[in-house]
Order: sequence, then C-alpha cells, then structure tokens
Amino acid sequence: MVSSRACRPDGQQVTERCLPEECAVAIIHDGTTYAVLMASPTDLEDLAIGFSLTEGAIANMAAVAEFEMVGQADGIELRLWLRAGEGGAAGDRRRAIVGGSGCGLCGVESLAAAIHQVAKVTAGLRFSHGEIAAAAASLSGRQRLGDATRAVHAAGFWTRSEGLVAIREDVGRHNALDKLVGAMARMGRDGSGGIVVLTSRVSVEMVQKTARFGASVLVAISAPTALAVRTADAAGIALAAVARVDGFEIFCGAERIAQ
Amino acid sequence: MVSSRACRPDGQQVTERCLPEECAVAIIHDGTTYAVLMASPTDLEDLAIGFSLTEGAIANMAAVAEFEMVGQADGIELRLWLRAGEGGAAGDRRRAIVGGSGCGLCGVESLAAAIHQVAKVTAGLRFSHGEIAAAAASLSGRQRLGDATRAVHAAGFWTRSEGLVAIREDVGRHNALDKLVGAMARMGRDGSGGIVVLTSRVSVEMVQKTARFGASVLVAISAPTALAVRTADAAGIALAAVARVDGFEIFCGAERIAQ
Repeated sequence: MVSSRACRPDGQQVTERCLPEECAVAIIHDGTTYAVLMASPTDLEDLAIGFSLTEGAIANMAAVAEFEMVGQADGIELRLWLRAGEGGAAGDRRRAIVGGSGCGLCGVESLAAAIHQVAKVTAGLRFSHGEIAAAAASLSGRQRLGDATRAVHAAGFWTRSEGLVAIREDVGRHNALDKLVGAMARMGRDGSGGIVVLTSRVSVEMVQKTARFGASVLVAISAPTALAVRTADAAGIALAAVARVDGFEIFCGAERIAQ
Repeated sequence: MVSSRACRPDGQQVTERCLPEECAVAIIHDGTTYAVLMASPTDLEDLAIGFSLTEGAIANMAAVAEFEMVGQADGIELRLWLRAGEGGAAGDRRRAIVGGSGCGLCGVESLAAAIHQVAKVTAGLRFSHGEIAAAAASLSGRQRLGDATRAVHAAGFWTRSEGLVAIREDVGRHNALDKLVGAMARMGRDGSGGIVVLTSRVSVEMVQKTARFGASVLVAISAPTALAVRTADAAGIALAAVARVDGFEIFCGAERIAQ
C-alpha cells in the first residue's frame, strides 16, 4: 500500500492506495540474456516460458530442460536452460533486447521482421454470441491484482466445457498474455481448444502472440487497431472486441460467431 | 473506418467504427537501425527525435543535422543524420532494438540498465491544486485521434501562462510522450517550464522519459506503479495521478502542490 494525498474540491486527505509493483526481469537462455522486460513480479516462470514461446524462441515446453529464478539487486533473472537442438528461432534473434512493460515485439531488427507473417491458425472453432459474452464476463471478479489496483491488464483462457481455465495479470498487456501462454504450456496445453480473453486493447503483437498460441478466437474488452484486425483476419482468428455488458462487436471471423 | 458487426441482446447490425492505425517504424541513426517500433503513423519526425532524446541517444536538437522519412513496403524509415560528435549515448546502445506500441525501455541489455539512475530534475516548479486540475483537464476535447477512436493515449505539455502548449497521440503511451518531447524540442523547448500531462498509466519508463525532458511535474489521468512513484520521488518529480473531474491524488512532491 502506498499513501497518496487525495485532493478534492472540499479539501485533501491522506489515503491509502494499492499500487501495482513492477520490476526489471531478464529472460536468459542458456546463460545469454534474451530479453529484459519491466513486469509485474508474479507468475514469472509462466512469463519466461510464455514469452519464449510467443516470440518463437522455443517451439514447445519440451525445449525447456530447467528453470531457475535468481533475485539480483536490480531485478530478477529468469534462467531457462534449453535442450540441445530445441532453441527454435532464438539463434536468429539472440541479441539482448529490452521491453517496457508494454513491449511485445522485442528482438527483431527490421521493418519486415516487425510485421512478420503470422502462421494461419487451424483450430477454427465456432462459438455462439452467448458463449462469447460468457468468455468476456469470465474475467470479472477473477482479477486479483486488477481488482486491488485498477491498474493492470489481464489475459484469460476460456473453454466451453471448463469456463475460465487460467488468468494471468501484469502491468503490461503483452506480459499478461505471455504469462497466460506460459501457464497453459506448463499444463501441457495450447490455445486450440478455446478463447483468449483480454482486458486490454488489441494491438498487432497481441494477435501475433495469440496466433503462436494456436487460439482461433480472441475476445477483448477494449478496441483493436486496424492493423490488428487485418492481421487477425489473415491468420484465421475471429476477433470480437469492445466487449461490454450490453454486447460486443465482431471485427473479423463473423462466420464463426453464430447468433 | 472499419466495419464491425455490433452484437447486442436485441440483435446485431453492421456499424462503422474508426480504429487507430499502427505501423512499423524504424528509427535509423546515420544509416544504422537504432530501434523498430509499432506506432501510430502521425507526427513521426517528433517521434524519431523525441525517442532519440528520451533514450539518451542524442543530447539535444543540435545533434540532428537532417531528418528524412522514407516509406517502405513493411513500414516507414525515420532517418536521422547526426552531427559528428553529437551521438550522445547511442554508441553504447547501438544494437538494433524493437519495441511494441507500448515499449519504452528498448536497447539496454541488463537489469541495471533497465533501472538506470535518473538524473535529478532541477526545475522544481510549484503549482496550485487548481492549476494541476486545469492541466489535467486541458487534454479534453484536444485529442483528435483519441476522440475519434477512444483507443489511443495522449501526452500534453501545459504551462501556467500558455495553457496546453502541445499534445501528441499514439497507440503506445511511450510513443505519445516521445512525440511530445520531440515536438517541444523542435520548438526549441524542454520540459522545465511546465507540466507533462498523460492520459495513460504511469509506469517507470514514463517517469524516466519525463526526467530526460526536464519536467518537474507529471500529472496522469490513470494510476502509477509503485516503482514509478519511487523513481519520480528520487528524481524530484512531483507526481499527481488518478486525475478525474472531482480531483486527483498526489503520490510524491506534495510540498510543491499547494492548496
């Protein structure tokens, strides 16, 4: 809890407010720094694995031989030891990269790499309007950090048979999604069986990461960018956003969201 | 404008919605890629200069000999040609770096560099509650892109004598602030004479960039992180946030915000 001085027209008073923490984390592959991010210091093993997966540095959980978390004076080292030959695309992008809490495209070095072609998602699931609304509503009351601070993003995974399977939170929207992907991978699952639900806006990196996760439906509380819509459409991801209590808007893949 | 299918309990209809665009931009110093970011494609000269300033790659506008903007198939190249000997810290951090639309810490490669010590801001301006509220309110009705899309961030600079001096917008909160800093630098000004106003949350990079800009007061509509408060306090920046129509909260530097 942090004290703040609330200033209102009728005077000021010292109040207590719960602010989200953030810290620097280094994701280290086989002893070499792969990325440095600012992140909420929760679920950091999920973050290290999810980021490595959605950035294409590793192909799957089988690539991870060992995980180690080491506190340092300036932040936290997340050390992944990879199995030989399982490094994925890391070799192509091994330079040290740093992202702010909102960073999602780290490590590429050209315009072409930033707008990389996303592999088509094959799951192609269909959902009803009611199911889309249920997925969007499923985050409500489940955002432990968000409910306390009103200042972090959440990403969840929802399926028809299970409801909300997992939810992860972070000051950065990309980190929240990476943590979710990492948590699911550690359960031995990808995104092919359900819906990714985000509280945040949908920028293109969120679509790229959802595609790597293999999810064919993305639902967001906030709005997408125009590029995110084009990218989702090309990747075969149905995108519903601006999801509020009174409905949502479908931006692409409407044929898979039936009334 | 993008068509979306609005789904409400009483049926669905196709509507038109204005979505923010985003594109890949490469910031290139003397022919070498310094950073690749996703950004809203507006005020890109401001972005290139502001990012180079707040990242410490150049010390001031005098370092910039020439600016050139070149469209490419995958995005836009922002080419800065620097005067010899004015490269600032770029030499230390010349590796190619890429940030998502929310990225703000690009290009450092260690935990220590991520949490770099921020130089103390010396301006130390004092403002009244009414002035803080006026600064926060000054963005209202001036967010051209934000008013159209409800999906981008804005950063503004406000002074007692001039009111809102400049405002810039972007899908990424760091980019909005960098564009503002660049726009001010191109007017020959730094942040020492007024208040930086943000619509976004205040993560630590926003404080680091504000400090580089030389502004001693930061006002935000949304909440800060705990690390941002500690960093602002250490840098001598007064931080007021959660600024709403009925008031705001002061997180540090309260002695410079008088009732």
